[in-house]
Amino acid sequence: MKITAVDPFYLRMPNITTAADGTQDTLLVRIRTDTGLEGWGECDASPLVSLAVYCCPMSHGNIINIRTSLIGETLEGPADVVRLSEKTLRNGLDIQQIQHAYSGAEIALWDVIGQQLGKPVYRLLAEMSGTSDVAHPKLPYASVLFGDTPEATYHVAVRLCEQGYRAAKFGWGPMGKFGEANDIALVRAAREGMEPDAKIMIDAGVVWGTDYETAYNRAEAFAEFSPTWLEEPLAPDAIDAYGSLTEKQPSVPIAAGEGSSVYRMAEDLIVNGGIQFVQIDAGRIGGIMPSFQVRQLAEQHGIQYVNHTFKSHLSLASSLHVFATNPDFDLLEYPAAGSELSQSVVVEPFPVESDGTVQVKELPGLGVRVDTEAIRRYLAPVRIEVGTDTVFEQTPL
Amino acid sequence: MKITAVDPFYLRMPNITTAADGTQDTLLVRIRTDTGLEGWGECDASPLVSLAVYCCPMSHGNIINIRTSLIGETLEGPADVVRLSEKTLRNGLDIQQIQHAYSGAEIALWDVIGQQLGKPVYRLLAEMSGTSDVAHPKLPYASVLFGDTPEATYHVAVRLCEQGYRAAKFGWGPMGKFGEANDIALVRAAREGMEPDAKIMIDAGVVWGTDYETAYNRAEAFAEFSPTWLEEPLAPDAIDAYGSLTEKQPSVPIAAGEGSSVYRMAEDLIVNGGIQFVQIDAGRIGGIMPSFQVRQLAEQHGIQYVNHTFKSHLSLASSLHVFATNPDFDLLEYPAAGSELSQSVVVEPFPVESDGTVQVKELPGLGVRVDTEAIRRYLAPVRIEVGTDTVFEQTPL
Repeated sequence: MKITAVDPFYLRMPNITTAADGTQDTLLVRIRTDTGLEGWGECDASPLVSLAVYCCPMSHGNIINIRTSLIGETLEGPADVVRLSEKTLRNGLDIQQIQHAYSGAEIALWDVIGQQLGKPVYRLLAEMSGTSDVAHPKLPYASVLFGDTPEATYHVAVRLCEQGYRAAKFGWGPMGKFGEANDIALVRAAREGMEPDAKIMIDAGVVWGTDYETAYNRAEAFAEFSPTWLEEPLAPDAIDAYGSLTEKQPSVPIAAGEGSSVYRMAEDLIVNGGIQFVQIDAGRIGGIMPSFQVRQLAEQHGIQYVNHTFKSHLSLASSLHVFATNPDFDLLEYPAAGSELSQSVVVEPFPVESDGTVQVKELPGLGVRVDTEAIRRYLAPVRIEVGTDTVFEQTPL
Repeated sequence: MKITAVDPFYLRMPNITTAADGTQDTLLVRIRTDTGLEGWGECDASPLVSLAVYCCPMSHGNIINIRTSLIGETLEGPADVVRLSEKTLRNGLDIQQIQHAYSGAEIALWDVIGQQLGKPVYRLLAEMSGTSDVAHPKLPYASVLFGDTPEATYHVAVRLCEQGYRAAKFGWGPMGKFGEANDIALVRAAREGMEPDAKIMIDAGVVWGTDYETAYNRAEAFAEFSPTWLEEPLAPDAIDAYGSLTEKQPSVPIAAGEGSSVYRMAEDLIVNGGIQFVQIDAGRIGGIMPSFQVRQLAEQHGIQYVNHTFKSHLSLASSLHVFATNPDFDLLEYPAAGSELSQSVVVEPFPVESDGTVQVKELPGLGVRVDTEAIRRYLAPVRIEVGTDTVFEQTPL
């Protein structure tokens, strides 16, 4: 079959705030083929900047947009996805945003191929890599922001507990901004609000920059509340600082990696940063295949791969296929407090099963269907003119 | 003074081809203040994608555009440039393209501050870092593409020689695409076309991807023609492959780094890739200050810093200030075959002096003036609508 259309859609809530809530807007990508098949993917990135990568006029042989690279191409199997990814990334070598933008298209290509071949994406990955094709359930952790105060955080935790979550990650907000005592009070509140045997994770939201001493001290101070990890205490590319931090062997394991916009950033964090949990967003790093490669690297290094997902269940689906078949990688970031937009994207979100786990769907492709009716009201149509040319005009949803 | 306007301008030639010629279009950034001062910078990046970073609607606290970060801010000295860079990059943490886009604004900020303080930018950098403020001349090397054949390459070299160049870099085009014999013939032609004592450099244009064995074999095969370096034989982020290549100690030194869109990429190439020449584009890595930091790292590691410049002499000016004061860093990439657009950007380009060198200008700021009259005919006005908002409308030049 041939790719006939590659369409990005910028969706957003009516009011956007500075809160670290990535579900306030999104960029979806739809790919259509001449057989009538349709695949979808979601980017976790600035919608407008990423959309520009789909339509920017050519600058030279290293700045060619994604639509030009994909439309008219042949798509028959997983090898074509790999080939088209190489082509698109090579054509966009000098576009820094290329991975963020291409992620949505790459995921959509897998969705199409899975439907075409009648298999879930995780099985296609297993076949390609010659590894197990048995999917295992994951323990979902609710991913929420800290409340503005310890008290508010406590109530967030209690609510999650009542909703049945056995694990929850608390992040950003006041963490790191009002001194050690407040940081500890926030973590204590999260722990006390959850059941004693529940897992809690702490996301420091890159707040200590390159200051690994403070990060180490906080990790030690948080240890009494037994968090599963301390996430992103440092800036995403502060590799030396991560290396210095992990060399001190803090009592709480260090997690990082969501900012990996290329495979090398994740590899660098693992090899030189010494992290123990690597968190990859398939909607940023260039899609499912580079995420799968990081999963394989994590397996080689004996550390744990975790998804980063702070978008809709379309993103959750793509994330799950990447590591569904590794039973040791048993934690799943599960967006629990997303916007209405984010909750409207797919027709049937991933339920938390009665045993408290979440499973990949045994359906062709990603296994989720986009609810175009529901999301239409969030569409922000884009129009871009350059000189006398209209280089982008919104396609209807 | 206060920043009152931050305006990107997309300029382009009427016909853009796939040739690896980065001068076919460009993005200039103009910053104005309430004192009437005006500074300019140039980005080496997709103009439309970068322009979107100046105006994209906020997604959350980590996706805030450059204009929002800068307009209304106070600007009095170099410390303000550093502060505003930290703010802008922090606000754009989740915008992959942020460094490519911000480069032009950062350079323009230095231009403004230099004018305000009546000093060339290189002196401000010397004062900040407590290092020598004596500028040294550089040996310019013409930076050109290989001809399509060895014969065509020979004629390119002869012409450069006639123009008085004592050094020239040949890159991209057929290199690496038609087998070893043709690669060697191309290098031989470049050498034979130049004077015997002239320097030649070879730019392989990332053609061997991760195949460091072929890169090593080519370096050995090219050694008889004594090139100063073999540049970018591998993909920009193929750090392990670079490490494997340089461990074999090829007879021709390895150069790389132009793809560094963040400081860490350059550091990674130096520390883990083992390169001997690091080539930084101030119009990609986030501007003058991160380039200066790579220069300092190169000094620490005893390797050579070289600019990457394949745009106008506005870019050449910003590049020169970064390493003007180090006499050992004596080579300067000097675009010698740019488009008419590229040659029109500044009023007085950098001449090659009678002794064959190029010097930084002893004038306040960058020391060059943008020829707005001359470039106006290349302006491609951009208009971007998102929903019912016009988020970008072209400001007149």
